[in-house]
Amino acid sequence: MGLVVQKYGGSSVADAEGIKRVAKRIVEAKKNGHQVVAVVSAMGDTTDELIDLAGEVSPVASGREFDMLLTAGERISMALLAMAIKALGHEAQSFTGSQAGVITDSVHNKARIIDVTPGRIKSSVDEGNIAIVAGFQGVSQDKKDITTLGRGGSDTTAVALAAALGAEVCEIYTDVDGVFTADPRVVKKARKIDWISAEDMLELASSGSKVLLHRCVEYARRYDIPIHVRSSFSGLTGTWVSNRPRGDQAMEQAIISGVAHDTSEAKVTIVGVPDKPGEAATIFRVIADAEINIDMVVQNVSAASTGLTDISFTLPKTDGRKAIAALEKHRDAIGFDSLRYDDQIAKISLVGAGMKTNPGVTATFFEALSNAGVNIELISTSEIRISVVTREDDVNGAVRAVHTAFGLDSDSDEAVVYGGTGR
Amino acid sequence: MGLVVQKYGGSSVADAEGIKRVAKRIVEAKKNGHQVVAVVSAMGDTTDELIDLAGEVSPVASGREFDMLLTAGERISMALLAMAIKALGHEAQSFTGSQAGVITDSVHNKARIIDVTPGRIKSSVDEGNIAIVAGFQGVSQDKKDITTLGRGGSDTTAVALAAALGAEVCEIYTDVDGVFTADPRVVKKARKIDWISAEDMLELASSGSKVLLHRCVEYARRYDIPIHVRSSFSGLTGTWVSNRPRGDQAMEQAIISGVAHDTSEAKVTIVGVPDKPGEAATIFRVIADAEINIDMVVQNVSAASTGLTDISFTLPKTDGRKAIAALEKHRDAIGFDSLRYDDQIAKISLVGAGMKTNPGVTATFFEALSNAGVNIELISTSEIRISVVTREDDVNGAVRAVHTAFGLDSDSDEAVVYGGTGR
Repeated sequence: MGLVVQKYGGSSVADAEGIKRVAKRIVEAKKNGHQVVAVVSAMGDTTDELIDLAGEVSPVASGREFDMLLTAGERISMALLAMAIKALGHEAQSFTGSQAGVITDSVHNKARIIDVTPGRIKSSVDEGNIAIVAGFQGVSQDKKDITTLGRGGSDTTAVALAAALGAEVCEIYTDVDGVFTADPRVVKKARKIDWISAEDMLELASSGSKVLLHRCVEYARRYDIPIHVRSSFSGLTGTWVSNRPRGDQAMEQAIISGVAHDTSEAKVTIVGVPDKPGEAATIFRVIADAEINIDMVVQNVSAASTGLTDISFTLPKTDGRKAIAALEKHRDAIGFDSLRYDDQIAKISLVGAGMKTNPGVTATFFEALSNAGVNIELISTSEIRISVVTREDDVNGAVRAVHTAFGLDSDSDEAVVYGGTGR
Repeated sequence: MGLVVQKYGGSSVADAEGIKRVAKRIVEAKKNGHQVVAVVSAMGDTTDELIDLAGEVSPVASGREFDMLLTAGERISMALLAMAIKALGHEAQSFTGSQAGVITDSVHNKARIIDVTPGRIKSSVDEGNIAIVAGFQGVSQDKKDITTLGRGGSDTTAVALAAALGAEVCEIYTDVDGVFTADPRVVKKARKIDWISAEDMLELASSGSKVLLHRCVEYARRYDIPIHVRSSFSGLTGTWVSNRPRGDQAMEQAIISGVAHDTSEAKVTIVGVPDKPGEAATIFRVIADAEINIDMVVQNVSAASTGLTDISFTLPKTDGRKAIAALEKHRDAIGFDSLRYDDQIAKISLVGAGMKTNPGVTATFFEALSNAGVNIELISTSEIRISVVTREDDVNGAVRAVHTAFGLDSDSDEAVVYGGTGR
């Protein structure tokens, strides 16, 4: 039995009862013969409360001091968790990100990990302790300042430690049973996926699946760390994410992994752009300089009569105002007719590794949407994903229609193209 | 203008308003041309809330993890304070005890400072920043674990940093105007002391004055750091504590500094102890082995007929049960008749540097108590202090009577022996 890294999110340690439940689960893994390193987030609403406090004393809550403030959250949860484990008769030590050797760059509030030197963690578990590590935080390489890793930071801490410690698995405990073929709140017949490749998981994460963030999956893929996403409440086997199929699952032909949707984006259309080299470059330099991450980009063929074309792209709704302002400011340099902004859209994505070898997949996808009366506004494809943009109102119907069309529904006898073994 | 270390307690930074008020005060000192290092405690009830949380997950809240937990409190207050200062347009950086170079031994929950290496603080203020430092915490020299300094820890952090940085003064901001000749809640006519020697302040602190703790005054005395105790609300000049009188105060003959009282102690009397060499040693070894700090010790002369004597001592009420149990356990080795325990006592102390050269002081003290109808149960004296134990019920009347008898009342024309300059 080797070393296991476990990660528990804020909802799993929201109160004393939750912390005690997590402590029991960690001790169980230890009793089973594993060395255990547990990464923990701040308790429930702690982070939001700290952000509120910051807002009361300062209009600008960011930078070095904001990171110093937020990292108090994990400090509390990790110390309490270590105490709860000791109360069960096992030895535990908690470590800050800095003590755990999580070295980052100096970009406060969204630092990136550049090295992990887990010497103290290794010594602690070798001495027989359970090591508890604060997620979401690190220390900057040059200035030795405390940093936070931004969204998905705790998952990334767990995967990074798993890689640096040579863990046999990184278990991500959450409040759902695993990764599903679609959002179970939308599709009642969605099935838990038993195994999914890191590549497919990356596409699902980029396409709106909230269970794992892109960043942590990318890290795990690069260092070949298997992730096991599972419930901290039920204790059931969840979803394995890894580069290689596990056990008998290797025998199955995985084609379609799942259907993801995302209603957090808006669509910007730039109307009447001169169709000449360098136009797109100018536009997206303007957007990049405003530090906005865009998602889909679509350009239609230009009308021969006018020599003008339209370019559409999607971006987080929260960046909409900023993007429009930036484009208006450079209107003359770009030379467009008008801007259209639409935040009533949804993106629906079908993800599966076998997609490109199955030409019928795209056709089936569009037929399903058509039969459900859903109009398609934009289309974008990759090797293992097809995404469309529709009206936001249509999203639930569209996701259900596609889920059914690809035989992903849990009680359907036609689920032959699905790679999982069902619930 | 040199460097000033300021310390703000939990009541001064209890909420966002308090933090903003403290930020303004710090900026004022900076504008006056000082380099400023501000040591801050946890906000108001934060520490108690964390202790409660610990109690919910573990029956034993102590040791390494408890320190990790508690230090989250200052992390929050110091980051918020730095943000509030930046919102006023000044540069500020916060530092944990570890980052500030507060090196301690490894005794968790009551660590002692063994070195201060404030290189980062020095660089920060030299670059023009205001440095905010977490009080009450440090890092252990051998294991690099986070430690807390126990009671009075933040004051001690401030004084230790002031010494290491060569500050011209350590300002302790609190919720009262300074050190008074008696507790103003008991004696309405108590006067604020403008200057008091470190020696007298040490005696007042040991005798029940709560404004400054013994530990921090001792540190300041040893490194010759002037302390200025003052209100964070009023901004008035408070009380200076230093080895040398300040300015024209040097010309005055300080005799009596003040009257302190303490109702937190209990009295143990060991009745019928054989009056032979080694008895007291045996008794106080038993008490010391139980890790109990005792205060006054009194032994009466033995009755010649029996060869037996009685030994009384005072100790914190919270240690009473433990002391009795320890003594009972060693009853045979010590060989006493019986134990008496009394926790309805008070200690009243008169402190003043000129005392031993004024034989009338002791007489005046006892006469004042006698006139007030207060019975004396134990007496103990030092070079600059007389203490008596009385009934707890008598304490307020006794303190007032002594305060008046020594001309300390603020509207009295007889205050000739008092060293301060009045309010």
